[in-house]
Amino acid sequence: MTSSSVKSSRLLDRHAKMATFGETGYGGVIRPALSTEESEARRTLLDWARARGFICTVDPIGNLFIKRPGRDLLQPAVRTGSHLDSQIPGGNFDGVYGVLAAFEVLEALEDSNVVTCRPVEVVVWNNEEGARFSPTTMGSAVHAGALELEKALKTSDSTGIEMGTALAESLLMLGDLEARPLGSPSHSYVEIHIEQGPILETNSREIGIVTGIQGIAQFHVTVVGEEAHAGTTPRSRRKDALEAASDLIASLRLITSDANDVVRFTVGKMSVKPGAPNTVPSLVDFTIDLRHPNANTLTEISARILRKCLDFVSPCAITAIQTLNSPSVEFDQSVTTTIEKCVRELRQTHDHLPSGATHDAKFMAGLCPTGMIFIPCRDGISHNEKEWAEPSHMIAGAKLLLRVIEELAEVEHSR
Amino acid sequence: MTSSSVKSSRLLDRHAKMATFGETGYGGVIRPALSTEESEARRTLLDWARARGFICTVDPIGNLFIKRPGRDLLQPAVRTGSHLDSQIPGGNFDGVYGVLAAFEVLEALEDSNVVTCRPVEVVVWNNEEGARFSPTTMGSAVHAGALELEKALKTSDSTGIEMGTALAESLLMLGDLEARPLGSPSHSYVEIHIEQGPILETNSREIGIVTGIQGIAQFHVTVVGEEAHAGTTPRSRRKDALEAASDLIASLRLITSDANDVVRFTVGKMSVKPGAPNTVPSLVDFTIDLRHPNANTLTEISARILRKCLDFVSPCAITAIQTLNSPSVEFDQSVTTTIEKCVRELRQTHDHLPSGATHDAKFMAGLCPTGMIFIPCRDGISHNEKEWAEPSHMIAGAKLLLRVIEELAEVEHSR
Repeated sequence: MTSSSVKSSRLLDRHAKMATFGETGYGGVIRPALSTEESEARRTLLDWARARGFICTVDPIGNLFIKRPGRDLLQPAVRTGSHLDSQIPGGNFDGVYGVLAAFEVLEALEDSNVVTCRPVEVVVWNNEEGARFSPTTMGSAVHAGALELEKALKTSDSTGIEMGTALAESLLMLGDLEARPLGSPSHSYVEIHIEQGPILETNSREIGIVTGIQGIAQFHVTVVGEEAHAGTTPRSRRKDALEAASDLIASLRLITSDANDVVRFTVGKMSVKPGAPNTVPSLVDFTIDLRHPNANTLTEISARILRKCLDFVSPCAITAIQTLNSPSVEFDQSVTTTIEKCVRELRQTHDHLPSGATHDAKFMAGLCPTGMIFIPCRDGISHNEKEWAEPSHMIAGAKLLLRVIEELAEVEHSR
Repeated sequence: MTSSSVKSSRLLDRHAKMATFGETGYGGVIRPALSTEESEARRTLLDWARARGFICTVDPIGNLFIKRPGRDLLQPAVRTGSHLDSQIPGGNFDGVYGVLAAFEVLEALEDSNVVTCRPVEVVVWNNEEGARFSPTTMGSAVHAGALELEKALKTSDSTGIEMGTALAESLLMLGDLEARPLGSPSHSYVEIHIEQGPILETNSREIGIVTGIQGIAQFHVTVVGEEAHAGTTPRSRRKDALEAASDLIASLRLITSDANDVVRFTVGKMSVKPGAPNTVPSLVDFTIDLRHPNANTLTEISARILRKCLDFVSPCAITAIQTLNSPSVEFDQSVTTTIEKCVRELRQTHDHLPSGATHDAKFMAGLCPTGMIFIPCRDGISHNEKEWAEPSHMIAGAKLLLRVIEELAEVEHSR
């Protein structure tokens, strides 16, 4: 057992250093995928890795790999990692904590001269947030063969810059990196992350053993009314697209509400046109993001939403299409069991819970036995500059991750 | 009585010609104030005026004046007109009809060799719509001294071009024009316009005698919630700014509803931030446009709206400020009586009604006896490419306007 070789001050210092890349001055960062700021963060991590003699490589979609070899170089690696890109703006824990805890595991193994049967590899996934390039978890999707490389590289950000161009520019900032092909086999994958929800904090737990990732359905709804003069058109003669959209959303909220507050229903994006104070709106577009851990329930509520949009009584024309249907994923029992064994060994308080957010682990679950570990975050706040995790929880998480990786990579002996 | 000298085909041909400037191909025009398209429309009108020997002048804020002299050149002019700029996009009747009917009056007087005691002047107001430069009715506001010239000229459009610069460029396209100072005295002002509402059409009337212009109050409401992850944050823990804004608007709609559908309550502009499908919105801004013909009722409902925003129970923080308070205007009895006398003489069906929209006549009412005439428009639709008025109503309106102007300018004799 080497969990004592996790060095708290090293982990926290590196966390503070990473927080400087894209720092907003309001507690968070703006560090979009492949921006100068994210490239500087990536370069800094690679420099730390090179200083320890780890092997640094990059795949064609810009995922970084930092390897500490095992006894047998041909064995598939045990992988752990997360991402360094942020929402715009985002906090200092989402993604970056998972990368730094994984890197701390590599260093702790090195410090203790441990030899593992399998290599251990830290992965830094590209464009997890999807804040600059769409969709989210792009790096792992391409890695897992769920998204075509060529298509991903052609994706443009809001200023028209293609992912391929941004990646080429970013690579120039990273120093010497060996190229590797996509989709080399993995023995297993474990990702540690802040919960991004309030459950662990509410229940006073140090650790969450993640059972799986809840499914997501997304919809695009369009409401077409009629422009009219705000001063002259009586209420009874209007086809007010914003009024119809608001009433529809209120109605959708009602039919998706559940007593135990498990369904996640969000209207996050809305545009109102023509958008003049003195004109009745003629066009409203909005998105719906719907999540539930149970695949059947998600399907059932999705159908209910589409039916309500179809049947909604309004002077306006309403169309709704489903733009995403990403079923829920259950993590491999063997990884979950390993995590639970280690958590008990370390006597850490814990809960089992599904992940409300999606993660790169979702795509890895299709390739190899995969699991996730959560640590609590304050007030469940994430995708926000106020995001915060306690240092004691960050350290507890890193210690657990080290033990889990030792189990999966099979410690042979200390040198 | 010279109303028979209105030439229907001339008026309708000119209307068709004007519809080509900024034509969208979907029945309407995009002809923002001082754009190339509006300048071409203005130039065309001036060319028609020059061909008849009328006197063309421009004031410092870009209002055009086309004068047919009276017997005594020193007498203040009887004025009539409207505007040639449009919403983006707008229809082919709002404003342009009032200009062309006024110009038809001038030509009809000329055709009949009528001598009036007072000069008659067609006015083309600058930037009535406020679609390019804010505020609306800018030309008449500056003319009436309600808005400083310097301030108006410094106003920028959405691309940063100042009104002063746009005006200078537009003037280069208009040919020789004598400059005149602001605010020369008017004997009276009459504006003819489409109703932009459904009342005349519903009641099968040819003419509306406008009693006044209803007051407007505008508000800016801000709802501040908290960004949160759409997948992880339970409903009970959210501060969803869009949910709060929607509930508030529904509540405001309820407290502003009246049985006889006179109150005009419109939320025309709304922005939702950060605007990501997977993030609970933290900031919603929206406008309220409120109108009522009775000044006391408008004040009372304005107070009710502000109180509701203040008292609204929500996890979000709501602030509301009133950005515009423009009291209602009642038109001069003498002008209304003259219009009614002429309408009866012409045996035209008519109603008395207030104007739901604001017009340049609102500012003229502070300078001289002022009135307005409405003609019906289809389905009450305006600020829309579908805007439509029947040719027979356009001609009936021009005939009435001619008679009213003859009364106000005092016909002396035919030459």
